[in-house]
Amino acid sequence: MNQQHTLSLGDIARENRRGRPQATAVVDGQVRLTYTALDDRVNRVANALAAQGVAAGDRVLWAGQNSFRVLELLLACAKLGAILCPANWRLGGAELAFALDDLRPRLVIWQEAELGPRLAEARQLAEHRPTRWIQHDGTGPDSYEEWLRSAPDIDTEAEIDPATPVLALYTAAFDSRPNAALISQQAILTHNIALALQRQIEPGFVYLNSGPLYHVGTLMFCTATFHLGGTNVFMPCFDAVSACALIEAERCQSALLFPQMVDELAKANADRRYDISSLQVTPGDDAWNAMVSVDNSPWGRALGGYGQTEVAGMATYNGQGIGGIGSHGRPSPFLQVRMVDERGDEVPTGEVGEIVARGPHVMSGYFDRPGLNAERQRGGWHHTGDLGRREADGTITFIGSRGRVIKSGGENIYAAEVERTLREHPGVADAAVIGVPDTRWGQSVKAIVTRTPGSGASEADIIEHCRTLIASYKKPRTVVFAEAIPKRGFMTDYDLLDAEYDGGGYPGSAAP
Amino acid sequence: MNQQHTLSLGDIARENRRGRPQATAVVDGQVRLTYTALDDRVNRVANALAAQGVAAGDRVLWAGQNSFRVLELLLACAKLGAILCPANWRLGGAELAFALDDLRPRLVIWQEAELGPRLAEARQLAEHRPTRWIQHDGTGPDSYEEWLRSAPDIDTEAEIDPATPVLALYTAAFDSRPNAALISQQAILTHNIALALQRQIEPGFVYLNSGPLYHVGTLMFCTATFHLGGTNVFMPCFDAVSACALIEAERCQSALLFPQMVDELAKANADRRYDISSLQVTPGDDAWNAMVSVDNSPWGRALGGYGQTEVAGMATYNGQGIGGIGSHGRPSPFLQVRMVDERGDEVPTGEVGEIVARGPHVMSGYFDRPGLNAERQRGGWHHTGDLGRREADGTITFIGSRGRVIKSGGENIYAAEVERTLREHPGVADAAVIGVPDTRWGQSVKAIVTRTPGSGASEADIIEHCRTLIASYKKPRTVVFAEAIPKRGFMTDYDLLDAEYDGGGYPGSAAP
Repeated sequence: MNQQHTLSLGDIARENRRGRPQATAVVDGQVRLTYTALDDRVNRVANALAAQGVAAGDRVLWAGQNSFRVLELLLACAKLGAILCPANWRLGGAELAFALDDLRPRLVIWQEAELGPRLAEARQLAEHRPTRWIQHDGTGPDSYEEWLRSAPDIDTEAEIDPATPVLALYTAAFDSRPNAALISQQAILTHNIALALQRQIEPGFVYLNSGPLYHVGTLMFCTATFHLGGTNVFMPCFDAVSACALIEAERCQSALLFPQMVDELAKANADRRYDISSLQVTPGDDAWNAMVSVDNSPWGRALGGYGQTEVAGMATYNGQGIGGIGSHGRPSPFLQVRMVDERGDEVPTGEVGEIVARGPHVMSGYFDRPGLNAERQRGGWHHTGDLGRREADGTITFIGSRGRVIKSGGENIYAAEVERTLREHPGVADAAVIGVPDTRWGQSVKAIVTRTPGSGASEADIIEHCRTLIASYKKPRTVVFAEAIPKRGFMTDYDLLDAEYDGGGYPGSAAP
Repeated sequence: MNQQHTLSLGDIARENRRGRPQATAVVDGQVRLTYTALDDRVNRVANALAAQGVAAGDRVLWAGQNSFRVLELLLACAKLGAILCPANWRLGGAELAFALDDLRPRLVIWQEAELGPRLAEARQLAEHRPTRWIQHDGTGPDSYEEWLRSAPDIDTEAEIDPATPVLALYTAAFDSRPNAALISQQAILTHNIALALQRQIEPGFVYLNSGPLYHVGTLMFCTATFHLGGTNVFMPCFDAVSACALIEAERCQSALLFPQMVDELAKANADRRYDISSLQVTPGDDAWNAMVSVDNSPWGRALGGYGQTEVAGMATYNGQGIGGIGSHGRPSPFLQVRMVDERGDEVPTGEVGEIVARGPHVMSGYFDRPGLNAERQRGGWHHTGDLGRREADGTITFIGSRGRVIKSGGENIYAAEVERTLREHPGVADAAVIGVPDTRWGQSVKAIVTRTPGSGASEADIIEHCRTLIASYKKPRTVVFAEAIPKRGFMTDYDLLDAEYDGGGYPGSAAP
């Protein structure tokens, strides 16, 4: 790429400084920074990192809760060509030690509150010794602000190739250990604008970082808000009352809110003591609708889509057009998506294949996993490890993880299809399906079902209902009634269901 | 760029074929093509071009009026890595001959109607001999459809680097001859999504290609509409009655409409015989507002910005935030913009400098102009040749062409400032300012002014008005009253004014 075509994350910090010098970039407790002040601090952090020996390709680990410093460290790493990893701060000591030894960060920014004891354990367990540990919530000589004070706020304007990774996010364990997906500057920039197009992010947009910044779901909105010159409001972690107060005070327009978080907000604000009408969301129940505004953007009208950390966020958007069966919409305008068979050939419309993607916001690869990368990038396409189907109208249905196909008597069974059938039974409120080991068939199907109020549907009723609608080999052999289906965010938590209801033996999965 | 990160214009054709197989891609007279049919034809054209020896880097010239074939040829060139140039079909024979010899296209697609005699002249004058001339509006063996019939519709899926130029558009003459700006696939793709963000282009968007496709102003909407899976409606050239009929029939939501075109549409539909309510525009007078809808997108709320062919369209968008003096908004999210002095150093806020830009939708350079390219790309920034100023709020004011600064007694005078002052006079409706040669001062300022109805403002009144508001050396020495200020699109036609009112002697311009 020629110089005159480059655009890096640091360049956006520079352009926002020129273009919105007095606009508020971040709000975090008592901290309020304009785009000018933010960029000054970013330069200071970049120079402080460089003084510590952090160079292009080096990793910096953030071991703390949400903070505006995650954004400023990301931008500082961007200006150096270095890589920031915001670690999952809920991990145990051994898991944090794994991240230290796996990523080998030159620097760790850490937090005593909440994380102190686990990080102490991690430091004992890990072999890797970072050059320095800097305390995010400290005040002494090793505190973050003290460390910054020494560094000048000059922008050295190093030329950075936008294809350089700048972000590492730990994600799904394929072979029992998690892997850090490396996201390039170009990936963040193109994903930002694709997301902004869906969510209609405009100057003046105010985003509440209510979800954890170690997940792409929140981080993608944080960087898009920054890119478009909006205001990022941070809270260390979600709590409903603080969120209400911040939404009111900062007139936040958007936040990552899983259904449970919506319930908590509605409950915390049942007496309407907070004016949270600035918040634009998809409509819910009457009480909720009365306190918020409607998000009329394509994103708000058809929330979500199919995504994964490895594509820097969303691969498809429902806002690109809801259509076919179980629709997950259509791809981001910066991605091509195909469904392929084992040989990498595209499968016909209506058939299930592995979802593969290609485009500028696909990850660079996992950090230090050459074998896995070669496998996931074979044929020049990113293999998501998930199954999907192209419907006749061109929309995409996400079926589930490739490692969770149920195989019974040699036939593939996809949970999504059986679950849809189960939910069509009037007595069923929600349903999930797992595979359990079966000596004769390899696996058999077990359904976990929640009933609608007053429903007297029996196991036999439900199995018979399925038998009339789908092929007999797909019908559940057993049905278990439960109070609730466990979720992670919007998604069914199959790991928990497998553990609780004796699931296992999936053909694509590792041996139990 | 690694394979899994590539995205080309051809890939968008492929993805739209997968994602919107039955959606209408183009409408042109009797022709209606779904995205499937369009991609089939694109493959056919690509194979026909390849059979003619067109390879990566080769040029194809379109010498005809607007047609869906311009889009299909652009996509076919994209799949081959070749370059399409839609020539200005209003050019004279000698000018067309210049383009033939300058661009040396392997193939010319030409149109007998309107262009026949001028093209015959151009063929006689030009030294370059294309391999083949194919007639867009013919029926014989050298007709476009006949030529296509021979080629298979197989997609060869050649790997194309998105940085490859795919489009050549002739633009401003710096040294008396026009230059073809080369626009890469990546430039088109990133500009598409930046424009879509401003205009809120969504699936189902229908665009009427009412302006000429040899100008980036229309072409940028055509490619953005295609990218987002909308429908492009073509007309050979603008005429108000046909436009009304097409807007009604196809429910067009947008079109490039210069003020004069709006007047013609309103007149043609004065009796409201056409339902053009689908058209979303910025409000005008009552009669116009009654027949159309309001465009509530950032683009509609604050139309336009500053642009040029060399950045694939818009460099700044008013929709990014109207602010300071004479605001032209803020940069596209895929561009950095600076104002620099002669040495390339950034000038302070509030001072005038040359507008330079950098980002993925900056052009690759002019075709076959190594010297000019080196000059325009010095220091890794695209030098626009235009002057601008960053205001205190970070917005940008476009001042005018660098070659049109008026220099009087050693002082730089910017037409925009004087014109704004003139328009503040209650008796002045519109105004333009040119420099005329002056033996004593080098140049002096001449104002061309249209008066408001009933205004009796004299030359002396107007000069005195200016003297009280701006530095004396900036005030017009003479004022000429005119019926209208000539425009090209939205912009004052200074070339015409110079010719008509004896302008000249600009310090940055070539000798007269």
